[in-house]
Amino acid sequence: MEAIPLDPMTALFTPRAVALIGSVGEGRLGYHLLRQMLDGGFPPQNLAIVNPRGQGALGVPGFPSLAEAGLPLDMAVVVAPAASVPQVLEECAEVGIRVAVVITAGFSEVGNIAGEEAIREIVRRTGLRVVGPNCAGIVNTHHRLFPTLETRPPAGGVSLVAQSGALGGVFLAWAKEQGLGVAKFVSYGNAADLNEVDFLRYLAEDPQTQVVALYLETVQDGRAFLEALSACTARKPVVVIKAGRTGSGQRATLSHTGSLAGADRVYDAALRQCGAIRVTTVEEMIDLCLGFTALPPVRGRRVVIVTNSGGPGVLAADRAEEAGLEVAEPSPALREHLASFLPPQCALGNPIDLTVEGTEEGYRRVLTAVLKEYDAAIALNIAPAYLDSVPLARGVVEAARESGKPIAPAFLPGPIVADAVAYLRAHGLPNFPTGERAAAALARLAEYSLRPGRQPIIRQGASLPSVGSLPHSLLEPEAMAWLRENGLPVPEFRFVHNAEEARRAAREIGYPVVMKVVSPEILHKSEWGGVVLNIADDEEVRRAFEHLCSVAEGRDFRGAVVYPMVRGAHEVLVGLFRDPQFGPVLAFGLGGIYTEVLGDVALRVAPVDRSEAGEMIREIRGYPILAGARGRAAGDLDALADLLVRVSWLPFQYPEIAEMDLNPVFVLPVGVLVGDVRIIRSGANVGQLQAVIPQTFCRVSSAPSPS
Amino acid sequence: MEAIPLDPMTALFTPRAVALIGSVGEGRLGYHLLRQMLDGGFPPQNLAIVNPRGQGALGVPGFPSLAEAGLPLDMAVVVAPAASVPQVLEECAEVGIRVAVVITAGFSEVGNIAGEEAIREIVRRTGLRVVGPNCAGIVNTHHRLFPTLETRPPAGGVSLVAQSGALGGVFLAWAKEQGLGVAKFVSYGNAADLNEVDFLRYLAEDPQTQVVALYLETVQDGRAFLEALSACTARKPVVVIKAGRTGSGQRATLSHTGSLAGADRVYDAALRQCGAIRVTTVEEMIDLCLGFTALPPVRGRRVVIVTNSGGPGVLAADRAEEAGLEVAEPSPALREHLASFLPPQCALGNPIDLTVEGTEEGYRRVLTAVLKEYDAAIALNIAPAYLDSVPLARGVVEAARESGKPIAPAFLPGPIVADAVAYLRAHGLPNFPTGERAAAALARLAEYSLRPGRQPIIRQGASLPSVGSLPHSLLEPEAMAWLRENGLPVPEFRFVHNAEEARRAAREIGYPVVMKVVSPEILHKSEWGGVVLNIADDEEVRRAFEHLCSVAEGRDFRGAVVYPMVRGAHEVLVGLFRDPQFGPVLAFGLGGIYTEVLGDVALRVAPVDRSEAGEMIREIRGYPILAGARGRAAGDLDALADLLVRVSWLPFQYPEIAEMDLNPVFVLPVGVLVGDVRIIRSGANVGQLQAVIPQTFCRVSSAPSPS
Repeated sequence: MEAIPLDPMTALFTPRAVALIGSVGEGRLGYHLLRQMLDGGFPPQNLAIVNPRGQGALGVPGFPSLAEAGLPLDMAVVVAPAASVPQVLEECAEVGIRVAVVITAGFSEVGNIAGEEAIREIVRRTGLRVVGPNCAGIVNTHHRLFPTLETRPPAGGVSLVAQSGALGGVFLAWAKEQGLGVAKFVSYGNAADLNEVDFLRYLAEDPQTQVVALYLETVQDGRAFLEALSACTARKPVVVIKAGRTGSGQRATLSHTGSLAGADRVYDAALRQCGAIRVTTVEEMIDLCLGFTALPPVRGRRVVIVTNSGGPGVLAADRAEEAGLEVAEPSPALREHLASFLPPQCALGNPIDLTVEGTEEGYRRVLTAVLKEYDAAIALNIAPAYLDSVPLARGVVEAARESGKPIAPAFLPGPIVADAVAYLRAHGLPNFPTGERAAAALARLAEYSLRPGRQPIIRQGASLPSVGSLPHSLLEPEAMAWLRENGLPVPEFRFVHNAEEARRAAREIGYPVVMKVVSPEILHKSEWGGVVLNIADDEEVRRAFEHLCSVAEGRDFRGAVVYPMVRGAHEVLVGLFRDPQFGPVLAFGLGGIYTEVLGDVALRVAPVDRSEAGEMIREIRGYPILAGARGRAAGDLDALADLLVRVSWLPFQYPEIAEMDLNPVFVLPVGVLVGDVRIIRSGANVGQLQAVIPQTFCRVSSAPSPS
Repeated sequence: MEAIPLDPMTALFTPRAVALIGSVGEGRLGYHLLRQMLDGGFPPQNLAIVNPRGQGALGVPGFPSLAEAGLPLDMAVVVAPAASVPQVLEECAEVGIRVAVVITAGFSEVGNIAGEEAIREIVRRTGLRVVGPNCAGIVNTHHRLFPTLETRPPAGGVSLVAQSGALGGVFLAWAKEQGLGVAKFVSYGNAADLNEVDFLRYLAEDPQTQVVALYLETVQDGRAFLEALSACTARKPVVVIKAGRTGSGQRATLSHTGSLAGADRVYDAALRQCGAIRVTTVEEMIDLCLGFTALPPVRGRRVVIVTNSGGPGVLAADRAEEAGLEVAEPSPALREHLASFLPPQCALGNPIDLTVEGTEEGYRRVLTAVLKEYDAAIALNIAPAYLDSVPLARGVVEAARESGKPIAPAFLPGPIVADAVAYLRAHGLPNFPTGERAAAALARLAEYSLRPGRQPIIRQGASLPSVGSLPHSLLEPEAMAWLRENGLPVPEFRFVHNAEEARRAAREIGYPVVMKVVSPEILHKSEWGGVVLNIADDEEVRRAFEHLCSVAEGRDFRGAVVYPMVRGAHEVLVGLFRDPQFGPVLAFGLGGIYTEVLGDVALRVAPVDRSEAGEMIREIRGYPILAGARGRAAGDLDALADLLVRVSWLPFQYPEIAEMDLNPVFVLPVGVLVGDVRIIRSGANVGQLQAVIPQTFCRVSSAPSPS
């Protein structure tokens, strides 16, 4: 009996019948999987076991071949030995199975590249889709489908896509402990075929998925990933752990999956740019998923803490402020209102401390009242063992209902509040393990609600044809002219070849001027003494030109560029480089050694729009300087944002650009001007194509400056 | 029967007999306390209940007065109503009770100042000591003493001193969950008498206390606290949570305890300076206590992660590196050795991934082998439900025994590994909730082992008589002369009163010179145009003097100071101010706007020694600049450290100094020079005595500079 074909994702998550292929002898992986599927409630009559001996188990019949199973098989779960997997997959394709989940290990992760290539070849040839190999299986709670050895979580709205099966297992186990409902789970192992991009696309549209959780070590196609991620975040929150943040983490990733981890700072920028919420631990991930699925949106940063004990309230307040929430005092009117019904021992600040005598009615009335003024509340209950916390939970639940606003309860410690926590969950509220974690989660939830709209990421070369080619020579005068042609603001300048031309140019431009040597053999002009600042008159021009001649003596001297001397400007640097994973990346920072020492640079996958450019500018720690801290003139940040947007498009218009530095860019009170430029042509310097940020960053910031 | 008097701390923690004073009616606080004491194993025959009706409970007899109890009472636990507490304490003193734990609330925390003062008066008059009021009781597991309503933890080596009872309760409950053994616990509430200083002094000497955990919101006497803390950290690790880190946290503290929280950055510096380990959450506190009590010392930063699954291993590696550990690859020899017995699917980097097939023998052999090369290991086991983790725990325990080095196990997720975790604990190993938390804990443990010796904190004015008084006038020339007299390096300078004196001075000093206006009415010289740099010859001196005259026109013009022009130096700022909690504080940072914007300043409670001064210099984020980053000349950091030490003693030698700024201090390749000074005399400007860091910082960095 052959099934009417489903599309592969439908077949994967809602198969009519499933084949389990491999040994189901007691104690074997297949046996455990079968038990899990049955315990999870998948109908045994829709299961078939296939192995050479046709051995069944636990009441499910076994067959020696798929063809004999006689069921509308949409999906197969494969635990057969690695060597037999290609043959198994061939058979799957033959009987019309649409997708196989290959749990079997022993492929590229142990150097068996040929085995994995064989799987890919079958996928290409037959159209069968594959999850894995070397994966931990999948879950669809809403279909009672649990072909995995991990913990079976309760049903709910969170779907988890995990490159690491073990990490997925931890998430699912903790989800069960914390009452977090899961819709779907997929561990995709070596990703021989289906990968994070496919699952993001599917989950974006999946009505049972309210929130996507994603654990990632590497991606195969950076731009495709960002596109799928952007599309997903446009519809629902996506919480991401990207592991391999540090050197050793990245090495570990390398040895773990056999693929290259992109530089973490670019990942970080790209994830933010796509509107994803990056976290670093499974705990944070679960806290946010709880918040997204069980709380109404957190529409602002004003948070109030209602507690029955001082210390934990103070710690929650500390964390809330550090995480960017506002823990403001209640208004006088609110305070007066609270005082009208609360006993005198209560503290009416923020935290509001009901003391150990806090009651159901106290929590209910206080929370309901304060949420008229605040965006969200944390309801802390540090329970002594001799008091029953269920009434307090009831008060919190009622206040959540009455106010319609987010209340994050943190009832603790563990065993003492078990009944109260069960009550909270039964009534749709999460419980956070501590007030600090509740505070951190609310901060991220608020950030999510308040985030600006995002421009979708474009795929490299997808939307824009190349408009031209770079000039043959990329010496400073040609490069500056090329920038000007491309609409970038450059100062007036003259390329001069002798002292007389220099004098004329200086007069035309107007004193004081700057002069810089032009020679293909002198890259770091200022280190060579090839920059003369603040030239005041004709005589100084003459001396400056002589000086530049002497600097270039014995080298290929082409002349000098004359610029006006720019004063009263902030100096910033704007750079472009190519990330091996994500392609063109835009970098922005202040000039100066502090920037270098601190690595205070903002990155974005190019191109960016105005709002993204504005965020870059505000993101660096030195931003207050540009904005006019300590009485200095503020720079023209609108013009700077325009410049960033224009620069970010250049690598798409001119694909030859491998790297480019504009350093300095002068940010004036009105307008910006590019002070110097260095462009590296693609192919001209292949080594630099692989540049990672720290190198690029160091390099750009040591380039010369005309003022 | 009157007891032979014990000293109060002995009476508190090891009383022969205890009076419980207050109602013990069922459901009352006293009843719960009594039950807790009996359940904890305190002998009922050594207990007496005292209340007006002489009511006993749970087999313990009641008496209408202490005198009638007929036991050698050393300690009393008081839950009587607030109004009767003073009378109760009088009676305690009369019958020879040495110390009373007053759990009763309703004192200063609700504005009942008189009630608390009455307690203090009895303490002063009778010598009775008091814990509380408004406290959560105490614990001594080794004496089976549990007069508290919090969870009874297992016995062990950690003692907790908590200003917040609820926080203490959370700690004790989690300690029980995580198998952390506790020696003593004390919650001291409003601290009417005994406070953190007394308990630190006692626990420093207490042989049953291996590690002290301290939760703090405020301290009453900053220097006494630091002295007690230093004495304690000299003998055992002290892990501190200081709450009220942020604005709102501090406000909350204020409303909670009615006392003033010192500025957090000074607390942070002071705690570090005393050798305490500051953490921000109870989770971290427990992790560190587990590490200190159950692991051998972590003697270096090289850590290896042995895991059976990729993802969680990568996350642990990421966290380890971020926390300052080195996650280096195994040496080729070690790798070869591992390859000789491990199956081929194992990854031999760091993490070392034994895969899900990792065995007892695998963990044992690998851990034993790698710990010959590394300082510590994290043993991760992410257990699937179908595998028994106890053998893996056995392998880890054996490796810990064989290697004698620290192994931090992280077996998870929760219920799946319960048996294995029990096995670990039964064999003396802790279990960390995640690999990340194990990594973070190892990092702090290593930091502790590697920390330099600390100079003990001195009490203000304690060790040094005032050596003199400040000059009458603190204008620049007098202040600079005074600095020179006190051994601080200042440039050659002349105080001149007319152009001719200026010319002579400039010639003596040698061109180029700097000239600055001297006027008590011009504080911000450079903002007023009162600083002229780079004066090259006699004619320029004349013009400069005229200019300074015109700047001071209509003001109290006293003349000018002439200095040599200093070039090629780093500019830093060194400041002193008085913190209301801790007294004189030394501040150090780079000059420049980045420092201001980032608040990149190191603080220390004064005085400091050379090694502490060196740490201050290395602590600021801009340190690489001073050390010669990017090809610049390195500053003379030894001379700078000397300067910091000398400045730090000045407020003890000259108690009149309220605040002082040396800004800039020139740090030359050889030597340092103070470029300008501003001193505020104590009493001269009372408002500034209260200065908190950000203000001080902003102010010092806007002071004028002579170059």
